[in-house]
Amino acid sequence: VRDLSNDTRLLAVNSATVKAWSLEQLVDGCQRAGIPAIAPWRDIVQAVGVDKAGRLIRAAGLEVSCLCRGGMFPAVDEAGRRAALEDNRRAVDEAAGIGAKCLVLIAGGLPKGSKDLAGAHEQVRDGIAALLPYARDAGMPLAIEPLHPMTAADRACVNTMGHANDLCDELGEGLGIALDVYHVWWDPELPRQIERAGKRIVTYHVCDWLVPTRDLVFDRGMPGDGVIDLKGIRAMVEATGYNGHIDVEIFSTLDWWKREPDEVLRICKDRHRTVV
Amino acid sequence: VRDLSNDTRLLAVNSATVKAWSLEQLVDGCQRAGIPAIAPWRDIVQAVGVDKAGRLIRAAGLEVSCLCRGGMFPAVDEAGRRAALEDNRRAVDEAAGIGAKCLVLIAGGLPKGSKDLAGAHEQVRDGIAALLPYARDAGMPLAIEPLHPMTAADRACVNTMGHANDLCDELGEGLGIALDVYHVWWDPELPRQIERAGKRIVTYHVCDWLVPTRDLVFDRGMPGDGVIDLKGIRAMVEATGYNGHIDVEIFSTLDWWKREPDEVLRICKDRHRTVV
Repeated sequence: VRDLSNDTRLLAVNSATVKAWSLEQLVDGCQRAGIPAIAPWRDIVQAVGVDKAGRLIRAAGLEVSCLCRGGMFPAVDEAGRRAALEDNRRAVDEAAGIGAKCLVLIAGGLPKGSKDLAGAHEQVRDGIAALLPYARDAGMPLAIEPLHPMTAADRACVNTMGHANDLCDELGEGLGIALDVYHVWWDPELPRQIERAGKRIVTYHVCDWLVPTRDLVFDRGMPGDGVIDLKGIRAMVEATGYNGHIDVEIFSTLDWWKREPDEVLRICKDRHRTVV
Repeated sequence: VRDLSNDTRLLAVNSATVKAWSLEQLVDGCQRAGIPAIAPWRDIVQAVGVDKAGRLIRAAGLEVSCLCRGGMFPAVDEAGRRAALEDNRRAVDEAAGIGAKCLVLIAGGLPKGSKDLAGAHEQVRDGIAALLPYARDAGMPLAIEPLHPMTAADRACVNTMGHANDLCDELGEGLGIALDVYHVWWDPELPRQIERAGKRIVTYHVCDWLVPTRDLVFDRGMPGDGVIDLKGIRAMVEATGYNGHIDVEIFSTLDWWKREPDEVLRICKDRHRTVV
């Protein structure tokens, strides 16, 4: 077994972590920092256009661990669900255009005015099922990302690895899982569900859970600053055979988004070596 | 089957909902409002003393759906765990002294400086096991309350009905479950785990999940103001045979704690009839 710890070749930086930067700045910054991979959100890719984005990334020799994100399937009506499907197909094209290893999917929450959680779960399942043939044709793996239960109402009603595994069981080839420790670290089922996931884990994200957490969305911590057993979860993930990138994704209006992005990258790199 | 909907005899008001009130004020206010039961926190019971609290409540003819709360088992050392056990025994005595139907237990989070979630789970299990003989002798049911996963680090590392059921399986007679919809509404396993719980559900709490939620602790909604399918979950709970009180428990620095408590009680009573 290869010892992957401290291997900077595995580090990827998510564009959300250095929110102020454009794609060009992210590419340049990662080159300066010796960081070999990025995980962009669609906004910065669309801002330069997919073709130019792909050229910039390839010219820099960077890998793309994933594109964030498609999904958001539930809607109040059929027109809304159709619009979501069309947008998700564009996201597959964008992911392919920049050479991403997968497209991350966020389920979406309850449709406006709805309290029908089981119905939202069905819409997510049906939405992924409708997208899968297109993604398979494009050779682009989809990665459903369980989000923290505190996001169930308004962003993602798939909140556990167990639910993600159930969706993979049902929908089959072409659907994998994006595991972000922030969302699932608390789950007593996590060890069992990571083992069950096995090769389904196609992208792995880290940050940390701060105590106290002051905002439900924008107060994630830098790895090492919170309570998540990062090395323990990583060991479980790598025991499945996962040897892909480790993507540092931090939403932080209160701290990290206020800092100088080059400094943030330097600290990501340092923490990757020491605590991830 | 008796139709329990709209039956005000089932309504209980948790003292956290009218945070500004003392026990005397809560007792008087519920009498004025025609609300038949209360669920006090320990602070207001201790403020008047258990004996006087019991006399006040009995004289008013009120029932006590539960006492909130014991628990908080994990600690950094044996002295801390022993102190928690002693405090929990006092909580059992207080619950018995005021005629509460059960003592609610909140698990507690990670000990300070720890990232060992599995270890915290063990400390919770061992703490409840140590408390159970004392509670059984006192004839006081314990009710482990799964709290929302966003509280796992600092308040409660038991976050699902599945985990609570596992604890009941392991620890046996005398341990039940406090089901608060706020904490578990998002869980795709909820229907299955409520059915599994059956007679273990000894107290049932309601409030609502607001969108957006602006604080991880103190922004709970009045029933009907959020997205939780209250009638749906209640139907599942009552299908287990539960016919106890429905306890309205709202933490809300941002809204309800600023209002006049008599008005809050009036709205609780109204919502109990219409949306719970």
